[in-house]
Amino acid sequence: MVVKKVGILGATGTVGQRFLTLLSDHPNFEVAVLGASARSAGKSYKEATKWKQSVPMSKKVTDMIVKSCDAKEFAQCDIVFSGLDSDFAGEIEKNLRDANIPVLSNAKNYRRTPNVPLVVPTVNTEHLDVLKSQRKENNLDRGCIITNSNCSTAAVVVPLKALQDAFGPIDKVSVVSMQAISGAGYPGVPCLDMLDNVVPYISGEEDKIEWETRKILGGVNESQSAFELNDTVVSAQCNRVPVIDGHLMCISVKFAKANPSVSDVHKALNDYVCEAQKLDCHSAPKQAIVVFDESCPDRPQPRLDRENQNGYAVSVGRIRPDSIFDVKFVSLVHNTVLGAAGAGILNAEVAVKKGLL
Amino acid sequence: MVVKKVGILGATGTVGQRFLTLLSDHPNFEVAVLGASARSAGKSYKEATKWKQSVPMSKKVTDMIVKSCDAKEFAQCDIVFSGLDSDFAGEIEKNLRDANIPVLSNAKNYRRTPNVPLVVPTVNTEHLDVLKSQRKENNLDRGCIITNSNCSTAAVVVPLKALQDAFGPIDKVSVVSMQAISGAGYPGVPCLDMLDNVVPYISGEEDKIEWETRKILGGVNESQSAFELNDTVVSAQCNRVPVIDGHLMCISVKFAKANPSVSDVHKALNDYVCEAQKLDCHSAPKQAIVVFDESCPDRPQPRLDRENQNGYAVSVGRIRPDSIFDVKFVSLVHNTVLGAAGAGILNAEVAVKKGLL
Amino acid sequence: MVVKKVGILGATGTVGQRFLTLLSDHPNFEVAVLGASARSAGKSYKEATKWKQSVPMSKKVTDMIVKSCDAKEFAQCDIVFSGLDSDFAGEIEKNLRDANIPVLSNAKNYRRTPNVPLVVPTVNTEHLDVLKSQRKENNLDRGCIITNSNCSTAAVVVPLKALQDAFGPIDKVSVVSMQAISGAGYPGVPCLDMLDNVVPYISGEEDKIEWETRKILGGVNESQSAFELNDTVVSAQCNRVPVIDGHLMCISVKFAKANPSVSDVHKALNDYVCEAQKLDCHSAPKQAIVVFDESCPDRPQPRLDRENQNGYAVSVGRIRPDSIFDVKFVSLVHNTVLGAAGAGILNAEVAVKKGLL
Amino acid sequence: MVVKKVGILGATGTVGQRFLTLLSDHPNFEVAVLGASARSAGKSYKEATKWKQSVPMSKKVTDMIVKSCDAKEFAQCDIVFSGLDSDFAGEIEKNLRDANIPVLSNAKNYRRTPNVPLVVPTVNTEHLDVLKSQRKENNLDRGCIITNSNCSTAAVVVPLKALQDAFGPIDKVSVVSMQAISGAGYPGVPCLDMLDNVVPYISGEEDKIEWETRKILGGVNESQSAFELNDTVVSAQCNRVPVIDGHLMCISVKFAKANPSVSDVHKALNDYVCEAQKLDCHSAPKQAIVVFDESCPDRPQPRLDRENQNGYAVSVGRIRPDSIFDVKFVSLVHNTVLGAAGAGILNAEVAVKKGLL
Repeated sequence: MVVKKVGILGATGTVGQRFLTLLSDHPNFEVAVLGASARSAGKSYKEATKWKQSVPMSKKVTDMIVKSCDAKEFAQCDIVFSGLDSDFAGEIEKNLRDANIPVLSNAKNYRRTPNVPLVVPTVNTEHLDVLKSQRKENNLDRGCIITNSNCSTAAVVVPLKALQDAFGPIDKVSVVSMQAISGAGYPGVPCLDMLDNVVPYISGEEDKIEWETRKILGGVNESQSAFELNDTVVSAQCNRVPVIDGHLMCISVKFAKANPSVSDVHKALNDYVCEAQKLDCHSAPKQAIVVFDESCPDRPQPRLDRENQNGYAVSVGRIRPDSIFDVKFVSLVHNTVLGAAGAGILNAEVAVKKGLL
Repeated sequence: MVVKKVGILGATGTVGQRFLTLLSDHPNFEVAVLGASARSAGKSYKEATKWKQSVPMSKKVTDMIVKSCDAKEFAQCDIVFSGLDSDFAGEIEKNLRDANIPVLSNAKNYRRTPNVPLVVPTVNTEHLDVLKSQRKENNLDRGCIITNSNCSTAAVVVPLKALQDAFGPIDKVSVVSMQAISGAGYPGVPCLDMLDNVVPYISGEEDKIEWETRKILGGVNESQSAFELNDTVVSAQCNRVPVIDGHLMCISVKFAKANPSVSDVHKALNDYVCEAQKLDCHSAPKQAIVVFDESCPDRPQPRLDRENQNGYAVSVGRIRPDSIFDVKFVSLVHNTVLGAAGAGILNAEVAVKKGLL
Repeated sequence: MVVKKVGILGATGTVGQRFLTLLSDHPNFEVAVLGASARSAGKSYKEATKWKQSVPMSKKVTDMIVKSCDAKEFAQCDIVFSGLDSDFAGEIEKNLRDANIPVLSNAKNYRRTPNVPLVVPTVNTEHLDVLKSQRKENNLDRGCIITNSNCSTAAVVVPLKALQDAFGPIDKVSVVSMQAISGAGYPGVPCLDMLDNVVPYISGEEDKIEWETRKILGGVNESQSAFELNDTVVSAQCNRVPVIDGHLMCISVKFAKANPSVSDVHKALNDYVCEAQKLDCHSAPKQAIVVFDESCPDRPQPRLDRENQNGYAVSVGRIRPDSIFDVKFVSLVHNTVLGAAGAGILNAEVAVKKGLL
Repeated sequence: MVVKKVGILGATGTVGQRFLTLLSDHPNFEVAVLGASARSAGKSYKEATKWKQSVPMSKKVTDMIVKSCDAKEFAQCDIVFSGLDSDFAGEIEKNLRDANIPVLSNAKNYRRTPNVPLVVPTVNTEHLDVLKSQRKENNLDRGCIITNSNCSTAAVVVPLKALQDAFGPIDKVSVVSMQAISGAGYPGVPCLDMLDNVVPYISGEEDKIEWETRKILGGVNESQSAFELNDTVVSAQCNRVPVIDGHLMCISVKFAKANPSVSDVHKALNDYVCEAQKLDCHSAPKQAIVVFDESCPDRPQPRLDRENQNGYAVSVGRIRPDSIFDVKFVSLVHNTVLGAAGAGILNAEVAVKKGLL
C-alpha cells in the first residue's frame, strides 16, 4: 500500500497523543502535520504538549512545529484524524471537508448527521459506502467526514453485532458502565473526585450509548444516502471509576426471537470476524472479540485485558443466562484505542483498502 | 433503657472492629467480652488486633483480654454480636444459642434457615417476631439466632421496601453493584488486583442478593414459624472497585402493576419511615433513605455519602424513568455499618424495645 | 468565654469547607458571614458550593447567602478566617485589616512580613505577642493579620519544636514529604496525574518548608517588632501521592550539640505540651504529638492516623538512630486541619484567651 | 549467539511472570523448563498461574507442564533464572548449583556471600569475574550462583556508579524511597493498606539498600575470591505507595572530595555508559540513565517513565544543589525489570558474552 500523509487535529490533547502513539510505527500512515490551538501553534510539539502516555513520545514528532487548525495547513494531507474537543470540532472539521480533505473525527458533532457514517471499525465498515453520497451532496471528490463512536458505545456494539449476526434482531439491552478517567481528557477528572470513590454520572454519556448503538447496528436507506436506526431498546447507566484506561460494561441482552445457550453465545462471539480482518488491515485485531470462559470467572479486567490485541479487541467474559433478559456478560474496550484514536486509524485503513480514501 | 452486656465474636476482624467503633459510646450496650480465634485468645485486644479503622481504638477495649469463642466465655452476656467468618460461624453461633445466649450474626450460615430471621433493621424488623417460634423449637427462653443481610443486599432492599410499600409488588429488579474492598475483610483484596482496575466478579455475591432480597421482602407463614420468599425476580451482577467503604448499586425496577412517576418515587423514598425510627431506637437514622434530586445529578458517591446518618441511611439518587424497566436509580449503603455491624446493633436495639431480647 | 462572630473568606473552597466543618459545633465561634468570589456572591451556600467533605454540610450554613469579600460585608465580625487563594488573599486580607478587622490567613502572602506572626498553634503561639507592634504601626486597635504555616511545614515544626526545647539548637534537618491531594484544592490535581503514580514536585513547596521552619522556630527582636530566623539548615524534597488527606514526612535531624538516644527523643516528643493545651483551648489536642513506638513499626499512616486528636495532633513514629544525622523519624499532619483551617481556629482560640482578639 | 536453554524457578509468581514476559521474544534464551511449588507441579502453566501482567501470557508457555524445583528437572538447562521467594531459594538454588547448573537468583539468600557476585547489570558486571573463584571452590565447571540486587537498591546504585566514576568516592547518601506494590509479590500488599494511604515501612528493605549499595559499588580482593564493601555511608527510609510498578527515590549525595555543579552531574549521568551497552547485549538500554532537565521539573514519574528503555534504564530528574549534602535528585527504577527479572536476564547476557556462561 502506498504511504499516505496524515494530519492530526488536536494533536496535543489526550486523544491526539494516543493517535501519535498508535501511528509512531505505522507502515502506511506518515504523520505530516500536527494541528492544535492558537496557544500551541508555532511551538515544537514537545514544548506544546504535556505528554501523559506511558510510552515515550516518538522521536519523529518531538521537534515538529505545531500548526493552527486552519484548513490550509493541512492541504498536503491525504487523511486528517481529529481528536478535537466537540467545542471546536464542528467548525474546523467542516472547513477541512469543504477544502476537500477527508476527516476522520472522534468528536460527537457529526455522528448524528444522516449522511455521515458513524463507524466502529470492527463492526460496521460497510457503512463507509455512504461516503459517495456524502461527497456528491457536497460536490467534493475527496473531502468527507467519517465519525467513530463514543468510547463507551464501542464496548457495547462489538459483541451486539456478533450476536445480531448470529441470532437475529436484539429486542432490549441494559448496560451499566464503569468508565476510565482517560475518557474525560486532561486535566479531566479531579483526583479528589476519584480517589476512594465512584462517580455515578457522566454528562451526556448515557444518551450517546443509547442512540449511537441504534445507528451503528442499523441500516442504510435504499438510495444509500442516509442511515436508519434499528429498533433495539437500549438503557444505559454510566459511572466513572478510578481506572486509567479501559471501560468495563455489564450488559444484559434480550433477543427478539432467539434464546441461544451460553455456549452458543460464546461460540458466536469467539467466531466473529469483521471486514477489517478480512481485508487484512494493518491494525485489525486477529480476534475482534477475546472471549473468557468459566475458567476465568473474574475476567476481563481493565488493567489486565485492555491491551488485548493492542487495544483493538473487545474482551468479553462471564457469559451466563439471565433471569430477566436472555443472557448477560461483561465487556471491556480500550477507550482510547478502539474507543477513540484507534477507531479512526482502523476506519481509515479499511476505507483506503476499499478505495474510498 | 437498662444497659445490656454485650459480647463480640470475631472481635479482631474487620467487622468486629466496626462493631467496637459503633459501640464505643453506645448508651445501652456495654462491651463485656471480646472473643476471637485461639491464636488471639489470652492477648490484650491491642496486641491481638491489626486495627484498620480510621478512628482510633477506644480506650476501653485496648487492654481487654481477648477470650476464645467458647460459649462459656459469653455466659454473662445479654447479647452477642458475631462478626465471624462463615467458616467458623456455623458451629460457634449454634453453640452459643444452645447455651441460651442470643446471637446476632453477620455471617451467611443461618440466613436461609426457615425459622431464622434475616433482618435489615430499616426494612423488616417485624420479622423478629419469628424468634418466639425459633426459641420454642429449641426449648430455649433466651437463646436465638438473628441474622442480618449480606452487605450488598442492604443497598437493594431498603429502597425496594419503600417502593413496595408505596406501589405494591415489584415484578423485576436488575442490579449492578460496585462494591468496596472492606467487604472482603483483611487482608482481603490484594492491591495488585484493585489499583487502576475493577474486578467484575465476587464469589457467591450475586446469588446472595438475588435470594436474600426475596426473603427480606417476603412474608411469614400462617403459624409464624417460617419465612416465605416473595416473587420478585432479581438479577444481580457484582463488581469490586477501589473504594474503602460504601457499596454503590445501579438498580432498575419494574413494578407488577403500578408505574409511578419519578416524583412519586422520589416522594415514596423520601417519606419512608421504618419501625426502628418509630421506636426511637438510639442508632436509628433520622432519614432511612437520603434522596438526592436532579440538582445533584452525580450523587450519591461512596466517599462523600457513605457516612450519611452515621452510615445507617441508604442514599439514593439519579431517579429517572427507564425504557426497559419502569424506573432506575443509584443506591449507596455503608457496607460495614448498615451492611454489617450496624445492622446487628440496630436489630438488637429494636429487639430490645420489642421485648424480644 | 463569650461567643465571637466569625466570617470566612473563600468559604466555598476546600479550606473554606474545612473551616465550616470544624466550626459546625464550635462553642465560642459562631459563623456569621460567608465570603466568596463575585461569581458565588448572592447565591445560597448550598448553590454556590461543590461540597467535597466526607461529612455533610451543616444545616446552619446550607441556606446562608454568600457575600462578596468586601471588607464592609464583614463589619460585624469579631474574627475573620481566610481560606483564600494567594492570588486574591493579598489585597482582600489587607483591606479587612485596614477596616480594623482581625484576619487569620491561611495564604502565603503575609507569612514573610517581618511583623506578621507565622504561627502553628501547637508550636509558637507566643509569637502572637507581636500583634501589639503590628497594630501600633498600622494605627489600629483590633485589625491585624495572623498567618498560619504552609500545610507541610506544620508536620516538620511540631516535632522539631519539642526536640529544640528538650535538646537545644538543631543544626540540620532533611525532609522528604509525601503530600495529600487536598493540599492542592479543588479541582486541584488531575486524576490522570495521580492514579498509579507519584509526582515528585510541588511548585514552591520546598522553599516554604525551608524558610517557614526557620521563622516559626526562631525568635523575636528586642523591640518585639519583627521576627528573626533561626539558624537551622533545612533541606526539603516534596512529592505528591494519591492520598486524600494527610501529609507524611521522612525527617532526619542533626542537633548542634546534643545526641539524644531514641528513648530520649521518644520521651521528649511524648511529653511535649504546648501553650494551647495549657490554656485549655477548646480545639487543643490532648496530646500535641502522638508517638508510636517499635510495637507499631508501620505507623503513622495517613488513612489511619490523620484524625488523631481530631486532626490537631502530629503523629510521629519509626524513631531510630541515623548514620548521617543523629535521629530520623516519620511525621504525619492532617494538612487541612492542623496544616490549614484548624491552625487558624486554634490560633484564634489562643489569641482570644490571651486577650489579643 | 547460540540459543541457550533456560529454566525458571518460581515461574508462577510475580517475578517469574515478569521473566516470561521479558523472555517471550528473546533471540538467545529459549524457555525450556518452568519450575514451581509441589502444588503447581504437573499442571499446565495456564492452570497453575494467576497471571497478573498487563500483557497476555505468551502462547508458548500456556500449555507447558510445570515441574517441581528439583535440580534434575533442570538438567537440560544452560541457565536457570530464579524468582523464588527467599524462604525456598536458599536450598533449591544451592542444589542446582551443586548439580553444576548456573543459577541467576533474584532472592536475597546469597547476596552477602563473599564469593557470590551481587550484580546490577548496568553497574558492576565486572564483578562476574569472581565466578571463576566461586566455581573453583566448589569444584564445578559450570555451576554457580549470581545474584542481582534488591529492587530498590537498583535505583540507587545506577546513578551513584555514574557519579563515582566521574567525581570519585561518595561520602554519604541519604535515600527516601516510595516503592511500588509489585515489589511485594502477589497477593502481597492488601488493598485496605494502600488505598488513600502510604505505609512508611517495608520490613528489611532499608538494611538491604544500605548494605547492598556498598558491595555493588565496592571492589574485589586481590585474589579475586571475595568482595569488599566500599566506605560510603548510606541511610535509607522506605515507604510503600499505591503504584503498580516503579520505585521512586529521593536521593541526596555528598562526595568525599568533589563538589560538581548541577550541569556536571547532569552530564555525568547522561554520558554514563555501562559494560552491557559496550558489549551490545540484546536487552541493554541505549541510555542506562535517562536524565530529565529543568524543563521537566516534575519527572520522572512512575506511571510515565518506568517503561523508559523497556524498563532497563534508571530515570533521573530534579538535579539540584543541596544545602546539607552536595546534590540531590529523584531516581526511578522499574522494580520488576531492572530491579528484578530484567537484571537476571541482562546479567546472563553479559556473562554469556564474556564467556562465563
